[in-house]
Amino acid sequence: MAETKILLSESEIPARWYNIAADMPNLPGPPLNPATGEPIGPEALAAIFPMALIEQEVSRERWIDIPEEVRELYRMWRPSPLFRAHRLEKALDTPARIYYKYEGVSPAGSHKLNTAIPQVYYNKAAGIRRIATETGAGQWGSALSMACQFFGLECTVYMVKVSYQQKPYRRILMQTFGAEVLASPSDRTQAGRAILAEDPNSLGSLGIAISEAVEDAATRADTNYALGSVLNHVLLHQTVIGLEAKLQMEKAGHYPDVVIGCCGGGSNFGGLAFPFLHDRLTKGTNVRAVAVEPEACPTLTRGAFAYDFGDTAKLTPMMQMYTLGHTFVPAGIHAGGLRYHGDSPLVSQLYHDSIVEAVAYNQTAVFEAAIQFARAEGIVPAPESSHAVRAAIDEALRCKESGEAKTILFGLSGHGHFDLAAYESYLSGSLHDVPLSDEALTQGLASLPRVGV
Amino acid sequence: MAETKILLSESEIPARWYNIAADMPNLPGPPLNPATGEPIGPEALAAIFPMALIEQEVSRERWIDIPEEVRELYRMWRPSPLFRAHRLEKALDTPARIYYKYEGVSPAGSHKLNTAIPQVYYNKAAGIRRIATETGAGQWGSALSMACQFFGLECTVYMVKVSYQQKPYRRILMQTFGAEVLASPSDRTQAGRAILAEDPNSLGSLGIAISEAVEDAATRADTNYALGSVLNHVLLHQTVIGLEAKLQMEKAGHYPDVVIGCCGGGSNFGGLAFPFLHDRLTKGTNVRAVAVEPEACPTLTRGAFAYDFGDTAKLTPMMQMYTLGHTFVPAGIHAGGLRYHGDSPLVSQLYHDSIVEAVAYNQTAVFEAAIQFARAEGIVPAPESSHAVRAAIDEALRCKESGEAKTILFGLSGHGHFDLAAYESYLSGSLHDVPLSDEALTQGLASLPRVGV
Repeated sequence: MAETKILLSESEIPARWYNIAADMPNLPGPPLNPATGEPIGPEALAAIFPMALIEQEVSRERWIDIPEEVRELYRMWRPSPLFRAHRLEKALDTPARIYYKYEGVSPAGSHKLNTAIPQVYYNKAAGIRRIATETGAGQWGSALSMACQFFGLECTVYMVKVSYQQKPYRRILMQTFGAEVLASPSDRTQAGRAILAEDPNSLGSLGIAISEAVEDAATRADTNYALGSVLNHVLLHQTVIGLEAKLQMEKAGHYPDVVIGCCGGGSNFGGLAFPFLHDRLTKGTNVRAVAVEPEACPTLTRGAFAYDFGDTAKLTPMMQMYTLGHTFVPAGIHAGGLRYHGDSPLVSQLYHDSIVEAVAYNQTAVFEAAIQFARAEGIVPAPESSHAVRAAIDEALRCKESGEAKTILFGLSGHGHFDLAAYESYLSGSLHDVPLSDEALTQGLASLPRVGV
Repeated sequence: MAETKILLSESEIPARWYNIAADMPNLPGPPLNPATGEPIGPEALAAIFPMALIEQEVSRERWIDIPEEVRELYRMWRPSPLFRAHRLEKALDTPARIYYKYEGVSPAGSHKLNTAIPQVYYNKAAGIRRIATETGAGQWGSALSMACQFFGLECTVYMVKVSYQQKPYRRILMQTFGAEVLASPSDRTQAGRAILAEDPNSLGSLGIAISEAVEDAATRADTNYALGSVLNHVLLHQTVIGLEAKLQMEKAGHYPDVVIGCCGGGSNFGGLAFPFLHDRLTKGTNVRAVAVEPEACPTLTRGAFAYDFGDTAKLTPMMQMYTLGHTFVPAGIHAGGLRYHGDSPLVSQLYHDSIVEAVAYNQTAVFEAAIQFARAEGIVPAPESSHAVRAAIDEALRCKESGEAKTILFGLSGHGHFDLAAYESYLSGSLHDVPLSDEALTQGLASLPRVGV
């Protein structure tokens, strides 16, 4: 019997991150000043990021060394296991080989800790004592709280109010790791107070929470900001996932025909797919990379490729990316981590250049796949990760029809232990799809700033 | 830098379970018929257990083969990792070496799946189509639901009503794996209806839920009963933990001076400690084995060594064990899995013969240790497992005083992802100790049946 898990030793934790910017045929345009629309240099970001991360953000070097202190902390759970989904294959009766790279073994429960640790490391090295951030579903806030605790930094998390109320376990997890957690909009910032003045009952949004965290960091000298996705340096850190997976697929003796990841801001998808795209871009291999997003927030599949703000209050630089418009507020689907109006500029450019593909699913189809996966493989996936499960199952079912024994690799970015209310909703028949109206789409896109591409 | 995790390959999953009955100087007395008080033979258990498990229950063979189908499912998460707690050691500033064997990587989140899988396997092989069980905190019910799903058996779980209401996530997890979950006392059984007639608002207890599940199984030909702890065959299955840990400690180059596990019904403690006690019983090594229990339910440290019923309705055979009396209802501490009036007869006999030690802690001291552990090691432990964390930290602190570089191994039996409400209670200062009154202790012990030892 073949192995179920393909494991690596701690000495096989990657020593370098992979920077896909070195291999891309076209690069995204530079970030633009939110007020003037002029390109900004690295120095403009220095108010909220340490220079080491800014250098990574703009680097064109293909390989970037991972500091030994970061690799030391990665050892807590890395290398993460690669599973062969024998039981799922059998349940689907497919000739396809299905593998998944499982990031839920991280103590934070998702891939987010891969970047939280280096981000806090570089901030500490730069003399920063406190980090402010936002969190939606809570995965990123949990990871950053944990990383701050490991390095002895203070951490303040602006948590979207609706999640703060609905996901108390995520909040408690952050508090267990010593973080201060505020419901956003809060009265701590001008951005928050402005929203509350307009609507005291605002449930918040990721865009608002980003505005609060950025303002907090920009106005305190001891404090920096940290973002859990979208930016180049975040995707860079996440490439440990794909680098390990390549080595593991090699040991398993199969190279993937298709690599699948759920895609909100893009860091999980990019982290898994980029090291495989390295082969495609430099050696001409045929691997397909598929980003999976929710129909309720279809950034790649229905958004515009344009410059847009990262947040609601227009505090962040404008970035060139696929976006639904910074005023777009997605419906309250359970995959909170995929409810972002924009997307990683790197992933966006690759999609624009037809190097990656994208597909969108409604949430009932996603939870149907999640339950089928859980019953076969034992792991209850996060709602976000379940989007990749859905796409992988559909690929495997197409193989069943065509009789092809393709190799499918998907990223299982986290467990769903804090999302069981969503499962209950599905099991009790009260989960529904939330179709995106043309009106909401048109209104969101109408908010795009008029700056040249 | 030494490894953080000591991993084994799937081929190193044990091929045989270890049966400590082969090596014990004294064996517990035989189970007695609950009505007559006469010793019962294996055949009396056949109404609710398959013969293969009954044979394991009474076996004196030292090694018992693990079926290949069971090992195949163990591969989903086994061998489980052994961690060196470098960061905790540093935080404690102790010369002690602290290792922990982590069973929370199981898809069910705890060690319980180690026995759920073989129990369902043997039941299926015997032609059984449905299994009834009880669950308190929900760890056992989750594991059995999962195992039944893997083998295609139906599963009905009688869940103590207070947990059913307070721990919805555990209930949803069981339902995700297709189990029927009933709040106990229920109107499904005579035992349940009798309790409800007396007190319609009864919040239930483990003793009541056991009565319901046993009655369900005894009155349906297609249904058997499964127990998640206490019995000899359950502890036998759990020895995979200690067998792996021995191999891992060997690879780490250290033999433990002390092995520590939390102890409710005894299966986690026995599973980890028995393979090390094999060395002590057959080779005279000096390893200490410490069972850790809650002050609110101090079965070993304050109970009587006597024959008692396993349940409230006196349906189970009487077993010789340490017990607080089958009418004893422990205070509602968060470590629901340790709230059982009795204990494993094997562990009880070993404690009676001074081969294992026991210690009891109040829950505030336990959560203090849990948070210290989480902040150092990243893993949020289950309240039950946190009892072992507390004892391990205290051992390490004694080493700091004495300057001894002892090797401490403890069992981290599960994660606390479904127990964060308990952490919030501690963090907010509303968690209190619940001292055990002499009156409650006296009343419980007064319920012991008058049968000879």
